[in-house]
Amino acid sequence: MSKNILEYATVELDEEGPSLSIIDQTLLPGKTAILKLTKLEDIWEAIYKLRVRGAPAIGVAAAIGMYVHSLSLKEEEPSLFFKKYMEASEYLNSSRPTAVNLSWALKRMEEKVKDYYSLHNSPSLQELLPILKNEALLIKEEDSNICKSLGEYGITLIKEGYGILTHCNAGSLATSKYGTATAPMYLAKERGMDLRVYCDETRPLLQGARLTSYELSSAGLDVTLLCDNMVSSIMKSGSINAVFVGCDRVAANGDVANKIGTSLVALAAKHYNIPFYVFAPSSTIDLNTKSGNDIPIEQRPPEEVTQLWYKEAMAPEDIKVYNPAFDITDNALITAIVTDKGIVYPPYELNLQKILKA
Amino acid sequence: MSKNILEYATVELDEEGPSLSIIDQTLLPGKTAILKLTKLEDIWEAIYKLRVRGAPAIGVAAAIGMYVHSLSLKEEEPSLFFKKYMEASEYLNSSRPTAVNLSWALKRMEEKVKDYYSLHNSPSLQELLPILKNEALLIKEEDSNICKSLGEYGITLIKEGYGILTHCNAGSLATSKYGTATAPMYLAKERGMDLRVYCDETRPLLQGARLTSYELSSAGLDVTLLCDNMVSSIMKSGSINAVFVGCDRVAANGDVANKIGTSLVALAAKHYNIPFYVFAPSSTIDLNTKSGNDIPIEQRPPEEVTQLWYKEAMAPEDIKVYNPAFDITDNALITAIVTDKGIVYPPYELNLQKILKA
Repeated sequence: MSKNILEYATVELDEEGPSLSIIDQTLLPGKTAILKLTKLEDIWEAIYKLRVRGAPAIGVAAAIGMYVHSLSLKEEEPSLFFKKYMEASEYLNSSRPTAVNLSWALKRMEEKVKDYYSLHNSPSLQELLPILKNEALLIKEEDSNICKSLGEYGITLIKEGYGILTHCNAGSLATSKYGTATAPMYLAKERGMDLRVYCDETRPLLQGARLTSYELSSAGLDVTLLCDNMVSSIMKSGSINAVFVGCDRVAANGDVANKIGTSLVALAAKHYNIPFYVFAPSSTIDLNTKSGNDIPIEQRPPEEVTQLWYKEAMAPEDIKVYNPAFDITDNALITAIVTDKGIVYPPYELNLQKILKA
Repeated sequence: MSKNILEYATVELDEEGPSLSIIDQTLLPGKTAILKLTKLEDIWEAIYKLRVRGAPAIGVAAAIGMYVHSLSLKEEEPSLFFKKYMEASEYLNSSRPTAVNLSWALKRMEEKVKDYYSLHNSPSLQELLPILKNEALLIKEEDSNICKSLGEYGITLIKEGYGILTHCNAGSLATSKYGTATAPMYLAKERGMDLRVYCDETRPLLQGARLTSYELSSAGLDVTLLCDNMVSSIMKSGSINAVFVGCDRVAANGDVANKIGTSLVALAAKHYNIPFYVFAPSSTIDLNTKSGNDIPIEQRPPEEVTQLWYKEAMAPEDIKVYNPAFDITDNALITAIVTDKGIVYPPYELNLQKILKA
């Protein structure tokens, strides 16, 4: 456990095996366990159980996962491979419904398969498999570059001494590297700019407490942890100059799906006149989704609220539980959406289209 | 554990002993342990550690506690008794700073001692002790009657089928009986009115999950538990018709100190046009406190956020933690303050004075 968490890759292709290699984020910060996954069912489970999580990291994991699964199909007849590949891709896409990156990455990989088959009358898996590997690694590399861009745009929004509140984990544990909402924080640290970062613990899965406060403090940032319900209190105290959050999907009108609780932080920021910024890799912007109302919200099991992490059950047995994994932040509450192509201000309907075409 | 939680008294004088008898609320819902306290230090600790909590219940516990402590001083010289009583009362008052009921109840008891000494040249503890016992029991009885009144006023604010959100525990576990914000819910149940109650879990001490959802579901109400950060999501869904919360202190201008997170719920209620009602026994209204800025806010240990309840630490060691026990809800966010003397609407500065004189 002496190795710094930031020295591990959140998600990568392990050429030995080969396997999809991830840090099991459900065990952090207590244990750092690296999982080497080869079976499709295990990859599905790792995404569903949030062993790997964060919209960009899920996309990368799905892409590498599909390449690894393809290797297990390499003895199939090419026509059967195609069918089995598409079935597996659809199955993996069912692991989590809200983040668009999952289906986006799976589609990119599917397109490579379809393109190859459409161009070759007698397809060879020996030719196709390296193409899939390259595409998966490209998605991962692009993700790092996107995070760097988000960092550069984001750092223009902050000043020396700023207090920045963040929710959930949009950090390097949610991406290949640097994170999305955290990218400007890491960059500020590199450039000697002093910040104070405030992390909501983010119930029920505690990504803020377990992951964000862990990775940022490991990197030497000044981090304060607070419970989700303390946001109004800390904002009123004057400690917060800006809110930076990640996102799982941005609709065409600028409504944003992100970790449950995000819209509550946005409401409070609006009340206290604190700018609220959403960090969105282009791949999370989904112009096919008209508004937040059209984004499916994943409901998760009651035990996450009543039992998980605890020594004993913290609520009566069989109590009904409301446990949505995400909520929708209305575009009216968002000061700007920071993308890897630039910072988008309202009106979002127009300006999101513009930036995606740029 | 077969006995229903509602069959136990939250706080009472046990004549055998005699002792201050309380349910240890830190062990609920897993264990129902009744503590019989006789030592002043143990009573202080029980209040500080929230074994007994909730502004009204703390007041009753302090009053009974001071009577029980007085019994241990009954062999003292009367002049020494006076000095030791006042010292003990001041010490007990230091256990929690925010709720005004603690100092209010201790002062009521002190007044009885002072009055008795001022009227008698040769004071007799044999005469004084029964006076203290009566006063403590009177405070407890008044508390039950106040909760009944709050229930009657509160039920006029709701209709069949309403969804009511509540935060923390302002239930019978916070009072002698019925609770404050929960009194109308119990009354509605008695009268066959169907409600849906939504309980915030209320981090870090989980009073909503452990106590409110427990006592209300034990009483047969329809209860749904949610994390604090899900409040915006559930309000947006249309399930919530009103918010009912208790309070620890109401300032002269109508600002309210209550469990951390209350002001965040109030902000969200305002945003979604949902009425937000505060339930306040007259004893929590403190006209000597001008505004919320003048109410001391208790800061509590980091371990409550990072370690308590958990199988293992849920945040990096030595992470800084912001952990205030209360926050201030601005009067502008409060639709009305329900007191045992009637419902108070803005302007609070004027109308709180009026109702206290009524």
